[in-house]
Amino acid sequence: MPRPETDITATRAKIMAAADQIIHERGSISFTMTDLATAIGMSPSNLYRFFENKDALAEAMAEQWFAELHVIMEDLVSADMPVEEKLYQFFARRLAVKRGRCEEDPGLFESYMELGDEHFEVIKGYVDLADHYMASILVEAMEKGYFKGLELDNVVSLVNTMMQPFCNPRLMMQMMHLATEERLRMVINTILKGLQANDSPATGQPELHIAS
Amino acid sequence: MPRPETDITATRAKIMAAADQIIHERGSISFTMTDLATAIGMSPSNLYRFFENKDALAEAMAEQWFAELHVIMEDLVSADMPVEEKLYQFFARRLAVKRGRCEEDPGLFESYMELGDEHFEVIKGYVDLADHYMASILVEAMEKGYFKGLELDNVVSLVNTMMQPFCNPRLMMQMMHLATEERLRMVINTILKGLQANDSPATGQPELHIAS
Repeated sequence: MPRPETDITATRAKIMAAADQIIHERGSISFTMTDLATAIGMSPSNLYRFFENKDALAEAMAEQWFAELHVIMEDLVSADMPVEEKLYQFFARRLAVKRGRCEEDPGLFESYMELGDEHFEVIKGYVDLADHYMASILVEAMEKGYFKGLELDNVVSLVNTMMQPFCNPRLMMQMMHLATEERLRMVINTILKGLQANDSPATGQPELHIAS
Repeated sequence: MPRPETDITATRAKIMAAADQIIHERGSISFTMTDLATAIGMSPSNLYRFFENKDALAEAMAEQWFAELHVIMEDLVSADMPVEEKLYQFFARRLAVKRGRCEEDPGLFESYMELGDEHFEVIKGYVDLADHYMASILVEAMEKGYFKGLELDNVVSLVNTMMQPFCNPRLMMQMMHLATEERLRMVINTILKGLQANDSPATGQPELHIAS
């Protein structure tokens, strides 16, 4: 008889929590499925019924890691809010979540980054999805007249480039004291004011250029 | 009788080249001064005459690493060139040097980053010096009317924040294909056009805001 779906979900959650605990204790993701089975008091063959291999486990852990960030992004895309604020919130809210996690347990955070590096094909999907959400906000900004003369793809990658300290989790760890909300606001404003096609290098300061 | 200065310099250079070779071969900086002495066919006690410990060796290697970058920065600060171009060149020339080194031998590059992490007090001085050079270019830009309403310290750290993909060597390695000269030019222009105090969030697009 198949197990009820809720039991399976609960057991998977319990296994993921145990994996989390092992990573937390060892400060590393180098554990085997057998280690995990032992830690949870389950036979390896039983464990494999819930996760067919460590890849599947990593995928489920990534899903959990990104779940909260997803809700934030989805809410914002459809929010009734000026696009300037929307773009700021898109980074600020996720920054707050990631910073909170990192401050709570820097070692665990670092291990999750390592897990992500080892399973980049899983992470890649989430990164692309975040780009997709961001692109829809940037399109809204373009409709309002921002980023004159640029194609959307170009805007997406340039914004990503300038926003690295606020969205790349490894860099955030290094730059924690610099990647504040106040600076984020200024960087967003700089991008909104300044990012456009390279027709003239400094049209933002015309009155001064005439005077000099 | 003391050795002539030129002999000392030549021997130090030879020792540093051997250390470089060891790092290149092992892909790691975990060698001892005894390993180094063996590699170069020198007694440890003789080696210690040239470098009193591995810290002193790391310091000399950092000096060598930064020498070319220093010449670039010094030349630019006093160059007769519009400040917009100067700011672009400040990053573009160093980007080209670092990218060249990384492409030539990514493993050695990575090991040098590791060496820098282990001897951060040495690196810190070079980072501060680069900030000092950059600040003098930013002052020139402020005199021309850029970065209205901001203090120099604020401008330095905001520019550093947005320029990470073009100056942080680890991030450069990850973002090699994104941190191109073309994008650098656009980011520099965005900063020049858009970076100013947060009086109004989007004054760069006044005509469109009136229309919308």
